[in-house]
Amino acid sequence: MSKTDLQKKLLNRIEKALQELDLPGEPKTLYEPYRYALSVGGKRIRPMLTLLACGLCEGDINDALPAALAVEILHNFTLVHDDIMDSADTRRGEPSVFKKWNENTAILSGDVMFADAYRQLGYYAKNKSFSKDEYAAIHEVFSKAIITVCEGQALDMEFVERRHVKHEEYIQMIAGKTAALLGAALEMGAISAHASSQKRSQLYELGYEMGIAFQIQDDFLDATADPEKFGKRPGGDIFEGKKTYLTILALERADKAQAALIQDTLNTDDPEAEKVDQVLDIMKSLNVLKDVSEEVDQHYKKAFEVLNKFTPSEYQQELEKLLIFLQNRDH
Amino acid sequence: MSKTDLQKKLLNRIEKALQELDLPGEPKTLYEPYRYALSVGGKRIRPMLTLLACGLCEGDINDALPAALAVEILHNFTLVHDDIMDSADTRRGEPSVFKKWNENTAILSGDVMFADAYRQLGYYAKNKSFSKDEYAAIHEVFSKAIITVCEGQALDMEFVERRHVKHEEYIQMIAGKTAALLGAALEMGAISAHASSQKRSQLYELGYEMGIAFQIQDDFLDATADPEKFGKRPGGDIFEGKKTYLTILALERADKAQAALIQDTLNTDDPEAEKVDQVLDIMKSLNVLKDVSEEVDQHYKKAFEVLNKFTPSEYQQELEKLLIFLQNRDH
Repeated sequence: MSKTDLQKKLLNRIEKALQELDLPGEPKTLYEPYRYALSVGGKRIRPMLTLLACGLCEGDINDALPAALAVEILHNFTLVHDDIMDSADTRRGEPSVFKKWNENTAILSGDVMFADAYRQLGYYAKNKSFSKDEYAAIHEVFSKAIITVCEGQALDMEFVERRHVKHEEYIQMIAGKTAALLGAALEMGAISAHASSQKRSQLYELGYEMGIAFQIQDDFLDATADPEKFGKRPGGDIFEGKKTYLTILALERADKAQAALIQDTLNTDDPEAEKVDQVLDIMKSLNVLKDVSEEVDQHYKKAFEVLNKFTPSEYQQELEKLLIFLQNRDH
Repeated sequence: MSKTDLQKKLLNRIEKALQELDLPGEPKTLYEPYRYALSVGGKRIRPMLTLLACGLCEGDINDALPAALAVEILHNFTLVHDDIMDSADTRRGEPSVFKKWNENTAILSGDVMFADAYRQLGYYAKNKSFSKDEYAAIHEVFSKAIITVCEGQALDMEFVERRHVKHEEYIQMIAGKTAALLGAALEMGAISAHASSQKRSQLYELGYEMGIAFQIQDDFLDATADPEKFGKRPGGDIFEGKKTYLTILALERADKAQAALIQDTLNTDDPEAEKVDQVLDIMKSLNVLKDVSEEVDQHYKKAFEVLNKFTPSEYQQELEKLLIFLQNRDH
């Protein structure tokens, strides 16, 4: 997706603000990993959503920046800790913090990022244009999002150990891991624009629907990847034995023989391609692919509907473009 | 120290409030370790300080409880993560969270405790008697304390790897690990009583001095432990090769031969008792024991001086008793 001028402008603001974060030099083992985690980059989707939501609600973008930073620091904190839990050696093509330093350093520098994320919200205390209720709302939305993210990560780890996971539980997990923070990023942008509580809820909903759609779509795209186009075989998650929304739905709909084949394939290390294809065929025959594709569209549709309730502006257009881009992605 | 009626009353309030914390049942791997970490107990010194500070400033104890809970949850969160970093298998005689479950569970349940500690502060948003500035001050003191605790823990881990540590650096480390949160516990109690910013700073100072005194005293008591009284040999920290305030001061004052003997003893696994006794003799000859004992008294003296600025009350008496008890402890 080529960047629009507005996107470039906002991204610049975010990167500049991140660079200007006034972090101490010492203790080095605490603040070097912190700086590193933020500098490794990423798309800055969440802080961008905060700024766009603020603009959409006709607020001053300057007032949204501290919330945007808080959200981005928090997001990166969760990655630092998740990488330990998932034993992920790399993150965005660079060594993860726990790999570059060690686990203890990653735990502790993650913790300080967490606290420092909260500290960004002090802006809304000092700025007199924000009422006590608005300042409190920013905190409440933020804390609730973090707690939901932790719950999502806990469910994700529990699911690895469990044989049966219901599709509602899977949705709850991705809602926690992804959708909650996207919703919070947008809602915090709305609060920074002094928006009404109705607009705040709507923007939370927009982020939430977008997050659910995105995550289900990820599972869908994995199952339908075109090897000639992306050099990626379809069913990569099945090869890795990962539970996805599709395998969970398939198991719920399967007869005994089909279920046994799916479970057996998921439980086999490095299964044969032929067996993975059989699982994909079962998914097709049970309408899983079709239904999931429709479900993804439903969630995006809800997000568009919310967005259309807002006054047209360059910010609304930008959010619309983002949704269209996400909905149409094929990998 | 036998408990006074006031202490018992306040402790009951704290324990009851901890039990009434409205924690979800699921995900189990997140909230069971959280409940466990809080239930394993401890002396509840920090929340007690918050309540006492509130009473000292003539506030309503009910208003101090949420801050007291936040401080206690935060403290326990730091223990859950510290035990991973220190590979500590037990905590207060029970298995530590990471040992009872596993590292990932301990990281994540610690994170959710951290966020939930912040959430307790929402009380000061909802309660109309607290101004926006007071609500903001509670957050600021809390965030600053956590960050300082992380810095202290980082220094502590750095010192293990370093050959030379200056005594000022050591003070900075214990100030972070212990004094900052004691200071914050008291200051938050003052804020919950709507106290002036002068009283708030004084109470922070009281906690800070108390914390520094306590930690230096710990090192002192380790070096002077009476084996007949406590079944503990003197110099336990030296046997374990741990840097303490005493060994650091001794190294700063030692001549080359003395320094070599101290370093050699610290670097030897399981050194001979004779060598540890030589190190203790060097400490005595360099006036380290005498000076450290005086320094401990100086810090307690400052704490008493601050306390005496407040109007006499049962809360003041209680804090005085606590300081006297701590100063006179012999193990």
